[in-house]
Amino acid sequence: MNDYEIEFGKILEWLKKNSAKKILVQAPDGLKKILRLISEKLEEEGYEAYLSGSHAWGGCDIAVNEARTMGIDTILHVGHHGFVGARTTEVRVLFVPVYYLGEFNDALVNALEDIKRNSFKKITLGVTVELHRRLHEIENLALKSGFHVETGSLENITGLIIGCNYVSLRDAEAVLIVAGGRFHALGAALWMGRPVWRVDPYLKSYEKVDVRPIISRRLRDISSAMDAHSFLVVVSTKTGQARPVLAQSIKKRLLRENRKADIVVIDEISEDVLLNFGHYDAYVNTACPRLTIDDPDIFPGPVINPGELKYVLGKKLEGYDSRDLFRFDFSIGA
Amino acid sequence: MNDYEIEFGKILEWLKKNSAKKILVQAPDGLKKILRLISEKLEEEGYEAYLSGSHAWGGCDIAVNEARTMGIDTILHVGHHGFVGARTTEVRVLFVPVYYLGEFNDALVNALEDIKRNSFKKITLGVTVELHRRLHEIENLALKSGFHVETGSLENITGLIIGCNYVSLRDAEAVLIVAGGRFHALGAALWMGRPVWRVDPYLKSYEKVDVRPIISRRLRDISSAMDAHSFLVVVSTKTGQARPVLAQSIKKRLLRENRKADIVVIDEISEDVLLNFGHYDAYVNTACPRLTIDDPDIFPGPVINPGELKYVLGKKLEGYDSRDLFRFDFSIGA
Repeated sequence: MNDYEIEFGKILEWLKKNSAKKILVQAPDGLKKILRLISEKLEEEGYEAYLSGSHAWGGCDIAVNEARTMGIDTILHVGHHGFVGARTTEVRVLFVPVYYLGEFNDALVNALEDIKRNSFKKITLGVTVELHRRLHEIENLALKSGFHVETGSLENITGLIIGCNYVSLRDAEAVLIVAGGRFHALGAALWMGRPVWRVDPYLKSYEKVDVRPIISRRLRDISSAMDAHSFLVVVSTKTGQARPVLAQSIKKRLLRENRKADIVVIDEISEDVLLNFGHYDAYVNTACPRLTIDDPDIFPGPVINPGELKYVLGKKLEGYDSRDLFRFDFSIGA
Repeated sequence: MNDYEIEFGKILEWLKKNSAKKILVQAPDGLKKILRLISEKLEEEGYEAYLSGSHAWGGCDIAVNEARTMGIDTILHVGHHGFVGARTTEVRVLFVPVYYLGEFNDALVNALEDIKRNSFKKITLGVTVELHRRLHEIENLALKSGFHVETGSLENITGLIIGCNYVSLRDAEAVLIVAGGRFHALGAALWMGRPVWRVDPYLKSYEKVDVRPIISRRLRDISSAMDAHSFLVVVSTKTGQARPVLAQSIKKRLLRENRKADIVVIDEISEDVLLNFGHYDAYVNTACPRLTIDDPDIFPGPVINPGELKYVLGKKLEGYDSRDLFRFDFSIGA
């Protein structure tokens, strides 16, 4: 944990203020190892502490079911910035961000030089929550390199991007994303339709991202779905991913088009689970939009997101807008 | 479905009587393919139907969380005989047994002859729910072969065994189990401490089961747990498997012995999920007792069931009783 910072004092203060007693600590898989240290500290302070085994893919994935089972009053959700998609009223949730303190200056400088070589001068900047405290440092480096930098905000947090929301990015010639892994940068590229560079602070590397394989997969999957007769509409039970009303209206719309459609409800979506239900011509993913982009092969057939359904319903695919990946509205519109 | 029988008329009658509207159909993985046929019939009758993606390992594993997410009033739980471990008050559950109609006479006759060759004359008989309607036929064959047959009951169902309960078996020289797969017969052998033959009606095969590898694994795991310093006590959120109070009292007891213990709460237990939490010297499985018998390797270290904890706490392992696998009490006793 030398490279990370958690504000434990603030946590204790908040728990005391809220008269917490039984606490479930939850974190993404990569951070789960630190939960034991946190629960140990909590027990030293007199709290009952439990570890949550669920994945915690994001602020959408709150261990409400586990808390309910254990009669727990408070969840400490480590590593994400806050609720995504839905709040929960059943149990108190404290989001505990983890801040990355490591060095990644060289990768950043190299990325900025590469952007410059491509003659872009006006950039917009996005970071994930664990890098949020580094935003100023990143911005200053970009300014020093002669860039014009614009940065918006998400839920009042400047420069924050999350896996399914890129509204903090401003219009610019190019986009610079600092985040671990490729996904956030791909999401930014699909949302912005602009050249995107990404810096991975953990691997200390950078690259210009290429969304063409994803767009091509999207067009292929949507085309297949156009011809599909049977659809399986997938709903997840995760707090911020559960969209039962959306799923029902998608099913009704498909039935009106003389297609067959079933709704399946799943906690953790996987190919195994879906294969149990036999063959469907196509899948509609109402859960995490990222699955369709990052992991489409967990669906045993072509998969589309709700915002892409309008192409199946008649909208011209030539005008495909990759922002539809992140939209939950499927009306064809004007 | 030619080999299986479902009483669809009864289902419709029950749904009407209970004014069901939104129905979640749930089944074990091997039967999930028939859920589409059931949901289609339900929709023809004017009900809203949804498929449940969760595994449904037994009558302990009710899709309450999925029902809650979808605002569903009724679960049709296909393939098990009834509630195991706990009822749910949140949603109505109708258990729909599936009855096997296929032929397996030869395998049964061969098994009976093999039992006779071993000079056993008094047997007790156990079947899983999908074979319950065949009990009489099996019993008659055994009587015709000259056996004395004794059969008890579980929840008023004659001869019924389930994965974690064998109380319907009576004292006898040998046990005959008719069930798909090896597990029920292994459970029966561990419970009875008698020679057990099993007939697999689906594979049309029979064998005498051998529990020695399991007993030897149990002794090895318990011995390792005796020396363990850190324990992870595992709780599942499944309706009939969730034992939060038991887990808490196990943890307290271990702390009193100067061991370290954490509690982790998980829906579906897997090695991956447990490995995320780093190393523990041993695991205590408060969820399905069958996991420890059938699938101990999903725990990344030695695993014991709650009833086996007493050996870790000082009871002599030389007197190991394999019935403890199915017990949730860990006091050393008199």
